[in-house]
Amino acid sequence: MRNLTAMLVALCLGLCTAAQADEGMWTFDNFPTEKMQTAYGWAPDHSWLNTVQLASLRLSSGCSASFVSADGLVMTNNHCARDCVAALSDAQHDYVANGFYAETLQDEKPCPGFEADQLVSIKNVTGAITAQTKNKSGKAFSDAERTAISQIEASCETGSGVLCEVVTLYHGGIYDLYMYRRYQDLRVVFAVEDDAANFGGDPDNFEFPRYAIDVTFLRAYDHGQPLHPAAWLKFSANPAQPGDIVIAVGSPQSTERDDTVAQLLFIRDYKDPIRRAFLSEEAGILWDMGETSPELARETRNDYFFTMNNLKAYAGEQAALRDGPLMTRKIAAEAELRQKMAADPSLAPDLAAFDNIAQAQAVYGALYMRLQLLDEFPEWTLPDVVRQAFELNRYAEESQKPDALRLQDYNAANLPGIQQDIEGAGQYYPAEEKRLIAWWLTDMRFYLGADDPDVRAILGRQSPDEIASQIIDGTKLTDSTLRRQLFAGGAKAIDASQDPLLVFIRRLGGPSRQVLEDYNDKVEAVVTQNATRIAHARFALYGSGIYPDGTLTPRLSYGQVKGYLQDGKFIPPFTNFAGAFGRATGEEPFKLPASWLKAAPDIDMATPLDMALTLDMTGGDSGAPVLNRAGEITGLFFDVNIQSLGGDFGYDGAANRSVAVDATALKLALTSIYHADRLAKEIGE
Amino acid sequence: MRNLTAMLVALCLGLCTAAQADEGMWTFDNFPTEKMQTAYGWAPDHSWLNTVQLASLRLSSGCSASFVSADGLVMTNNHCARDCVAALSDAQHDYVANGFYAETLQDEKPCPGFEADQLVSIKNVTGAITAQTKNKSGKAFSDAERTAISQIEASCETGSGVLCEVVTLYHGGIYDLYMYRRYQDLRVVFAVEDDAANFGGDPDNFEFPRYAIDVTFLRAYDHGQPLHPAAWLKFSANPAQPGDIVIAVGSPQSTERDDTVAQLLFIRDYKDPIRRAFLSEEAGILWDMGETSPELARETRNDYFFTMNNLKAYAGEQAALRDGPLMTRKIAAEAELRQKMAADPSLAPDLAAFDNIAQAQAVYGALYMRLQLLDEFPEWTLPDVVRQAFELNRYAEESQKPDALRLQDYNAANLPGIQQDIEGAGQYYPAEEKRLIAWWLTDMRFYLGADDPDVRAILGRQSPDEIASQIIDGTKLTDSTLRRQLFAGGAKAIDASQDPLLVFIRRLGGPSRQVLEDYNDKVEAVVTQNATRIAHARFALYGSGIYPDGTLTPRLSYGQVKGYLQDGKFIPPFTNFAGAFGRATGEEPFKLPASWLKAAPDIDMATPLDMALTLDMTGGDSGAPVLNRAGEITGLFFDVNIQSLGGDFGYDGAANRSVAVDATALKLALTSIYHADRLAKEIGE
Repeated sequence: MRNLTAMLVALCLGLCTAAQADEGMWTFDNFPTEKMQTAYGWAPDHSWLNTVQLASLRLSSGCSASFVSADGLVMTNNHCARDCVAALSDAQHDYVANGFYAETLQDEKPCPGFEADQLVSIKNVTGAITAQTKNKSGKAFSDAERTAISQIEASCETGSGVLCEVVTLYHGGIYDLYMYRRYQDLRVVFAVEDDAANFGGDPDNFEFPRYAIDVTFLRAYDHGQPLHPAAWLKFSANPAQPGDIVIAVGSPQSTERDDTVAQLLFIRDYKDPIRRAFLSEEAGILWDMGETSPELARETRNDYFFTMNNLKAYAGEQAALRDGPLMTRKIAAEAELRQKMAADPSLAPDLAAFDNIAQAQAVYGALYMRLQLLDEFPEWTLPDVVRQAFELNRYAEESQKPDALRLQDYNAANLPGIQQDIEGAGQYYPAEEKRLIAWWLTDMRFYLGADDPDVRAILGRQSPDEIASQIIDGTKLTDSTLRRQLFAGGAKAIDASQDPLLVFIRRLGGPSRQVLEDYNDKVEAVVTQNATRIAHARFALYGSGIYPDGTLTPRLSYGQVKGYLQDGKFIPPFTNFAGAFGRATGEEPFKLPASWLKAAPDIDMATPLDMALTLDMTGGDSGAPVLNRAGEITGLFFDVNIQSLGGDFGYDGAANRSVAVDATALKLALTSIYHADRLAKEIGE
Repeated sequence: MRNLTAMLVALCLGLCTAAQADEGMWTFDNFPTEKMQTAYGWAPDHSWLNTVQLASLRLSSGCSASFVSADGLVMTNNHCARDCVAALSDAQHDYVANGFYAETLQDEKPCPGFEADQLVSIKNVTGAITAQTKNKSGKAFSDAERTAISQIEASCETGSGVLCEVVTLYHGGIYDLYMYRRYQDLRVVFAVEDDAANFGGDPDNFEFPRYAIDVTFLRAYDHGQPLHPAAWLKFSANPAQPGDIVIAVGSPQSTERDDTVAQLLFIRDYKDPIRRAFLSEEAGILWDMGETSPELARETRNDYFFTMNNLKAYAGEQAALRDGPLMTRKIAAEAELRQKMAADPSLAPDLAAFDNIAQAQAVYGALYMRLQLLDEFPEWTLPDVVRQAFELNRYAEESQKPDALRLQDYNAANLPGIQQDIEGAGQYYPAEEKRLIAWWLTDMRFYLGADDPDVRAILGRQSPDEIASQIIDGTKLTDSTLRRQLFAGGAKAIDASQDPLLVFIRRLGGPSRQVLEDYNDKVEAVVTQNATRIAHARFALYGSGIYPDGTLTPRLSYGQVKGYLQDGKFIPPFTNFAGAFGRATGEEPFKLPASWLKAAPDIDMATPLDMALTLDMTGGDSGAPVLNRAGEITGLFFDVNIQSLGGDFGYDGAANRSVAVDATALKLALTSIYHADRLAKEIGE
């Protein structure tokens, strides 16, 4: 590959590694003030950043949010609290479809299992960790790293409601201890109808122009009373304008901007095609179930929505890695880095890290399908009750080990999350559960082969349908009291249970653990350690003016309100209500809710609705507040355009756009459409 | 790419282009007698080849077959005649599940729409065609080529029952006129149960060891009487042994062994992932429908089976292009060819052909999703009635053009096939039809976007469900008499029809034609012409001792009965009945039919069942007879192993194996299991 990349570097004239304008997801303790000042003539000061840090939240649903009143009102996206609103619903009340509004404080409804984390402090602990990992590699390295992290996290916890997490930034270049205040009593105040939040449905998802109001308001409670947060954000009185400077705070998911070319090729050629195939099959099943009855349509709608969402994301990601300028830039940037490393005797030995990572990708490829089917499916793809049983069984196994040797999700610092997941409310729809379990087992046999020893151990001589019916008809694990009892009883209680779902999961447990350990030891540990070597070299050569990959921790992005060119046509940065009504067909997914149709005569149709921003955002940022220079809310981030679906790997300021609901539209909706007077007053209308 | 490939060539030491032992699908007029003689010490003589040519058949179901008695008995795979056996079935008689046996000649049941072609003669017509295409390119080239081919085919037809086809071999290096005798009255004599033909189901598909008897016997009739063919094949009295020389005759589908690297990358990175996603989604829907009722399970089983079959094939193909030695070999071979061309002044100008093909792949990538959704879906993926309506509408359009300017499928030579397809019996299951149409339209909107002008024109303001119900509830096109009338009435009658399905298909027609023409002109014509330039260069440099890519025409493959190594373990070449009974669980897909269980005491369990052969076979070869040196049937080809799924692009003698039913097992089944005495006697038992 050396000759090819050398040629590309020559073409690239050294510009390839220059970050794009507005690129970056910055930590609060390393905001690029000077860079932003140079680009925009303004940058936030220390106090601006401090207030915003405390007013921002990370949600357990994998989203972002913010405090927007002195009484603990929390704003996020409707799709971020969808599971909670769905869990409140029943056959009589479909709050997802019809929306929800608590007329009084007493009407606000609990969101069991929901948590919000407020970042309180950041402390660099790099020295303490590298002292223990020095000169170690492979499993020894990751065990040592885990032990060191566990010790630091354990010694940090100062009471309930506090969460300490060591965050690995720059792939081990820096370890920071993040301390959060964790809020676990969240209640639903207001949710728009699905047809408003998700107007345009799958066809409009990841698209701009866009016409959705994707918002839900929650409230944080403390000891049964509304919380009075240390900081909160005010809605701006001034509508956003094209060219306005904006900053958003979200918690971007793990990104892979520093991946090597070998890792990107793995994603493009293995992961994306296989994920697309599985997601397509699941989408087909969920869609088909929804076609058979209104009841099943209601039950499966939520999962179908997320499956299609994911599908579009994976297809876009694969396209970005295949067709866009991204791969060319990455190949050139890596070649440039390697050249510089080769020229520096202290860094040259670390060139081996690229080959080590490439070899680990080959191992990953051989494991990938098995890892998907035996570990990822029960943990991520299958219905709640399967995940809860799977985690109970894992917990039974892990709880018998010393903390430092447990799988990371099950060590002391993370156990509360697992416990909450096991004990929290789930959605239990037996028809969907049976169908998806039977599908999973059918695919397991199809892809791993009927003679595979793992498949034989898991299926025995039963058919997938038999197993699915037997374990779902027989299980009592949908009862949260039982799950709580089992968790409290630990390994002894869990291992003694003869619940048919648990009995089955126990059969799965061994093969699942084996492939996960293979992955952890032969892939992840190798990548982690070698990525650290590369990260150190990158630091040494390019300095610290770079941002770390996303780590599900709070980050700042800056940019502006700005349109863009698509296929030679200029897409303006704002849509308005007239656009929404013009787009409505009366049929799903282009059906506006009755509330909108009724309010139409009172709406100024020129009011802006959604807007496009140059902010570098990705998954996990959903629900992030978009702020103006005054630190006031000017929008609510909820999506990116299709050009941004390579966002895990890079950013292109020319066409990548974040999509937010305009704050003006939010205020108009609360007053003129929903007449949510109590809420409107609370946010200052 | 030049530097990279140069390096690979160096590594390859010039061995890369050497064909693998036993590689090749040879035409009857260019069998490599000397090569086989050198390898095996024996090769068939002229008379052997002549007899076998006349005894071999190509089926309209895209399969192969052979005459196996003096009374027109035809042997093929069960999966090749599955549609026909399904069409005979009704709610009372499920012949797919339960098998079929005509105790007497009078009980044999017609297979409407089935055809079998017997190759009678081959004539080289290269000069006549190149005289007309010389110095032309792009659309002008393909129009001229089509005109020349149409003229030759039209002037060849000498009566009904004769089919003349110009076959483009070596990508235009040679044009041959193939003349067939076509048999259109085929009747079902005997079919095994689905559980025997397809024992092991999806999990065992494309696998070896294998334990299936995938056989159906038909009979060709002529003027209402059993046909007496000019040649037929005898079953061998001697069981096959490891190391035995074997030759098979099949009609391999279009292969792409001569594709450029750019074409292979397109297949790996665009086509395979997208096809996998669509097939997975369709599989999910069909599987889910089958879960909801036994009736729907019966109706969808056939389509589900083929969808999963395809899915495994595409996944295997992608893996072969990604992980195997194939791509490395292809890159090296192409580099070697380019080097040799560059060194020859008369061939150097044709190096541009590689770049032209690569550019056409980029165009193809931009068109691919639209081509799939607007043209391939109605033509190939959706239920019969949609295809028949689509073809009626295309016929209405095409029939008004001069023959030479029609789409190839609709010119005079091919029109009988289209007519038979339109008028032939289909499977009409309204529930599945509505579901798949609604899915297709949902995906069309999802992947092309709700604002796409084509999508708007096709969907209007209706939902996919509404359209699907309206056109399927309202259509009368399931009535073959109506379809026959419309076809006979031509454009005038078809265009005047207000059948709701035809009205809808007319809306689809324009966008569908546009994308197909874009593909034909900007991709296919460019590839065809440039592939010809490369093929000429390859001829000039490597001589004529090479075989042409598969073209759905009769070919010979030679090799031997031989096991292979897999993951370091030797897989012997034979399975036996004991293996089948040992593998049976009593549950689908490992359920042996009642007939087998009943006959078990009478079966010598050591009798060989299936066998592995080094024959270079692929799709389209299904049903091909496997012959020994004496020209007698020693097996019935029905599948390849998973290592062979890159077979469109290459062959690897180390691990690629064809899978056949052993003739001994066929004879045992007819006598001891099925007691099909009339049939057994006819094949000489």
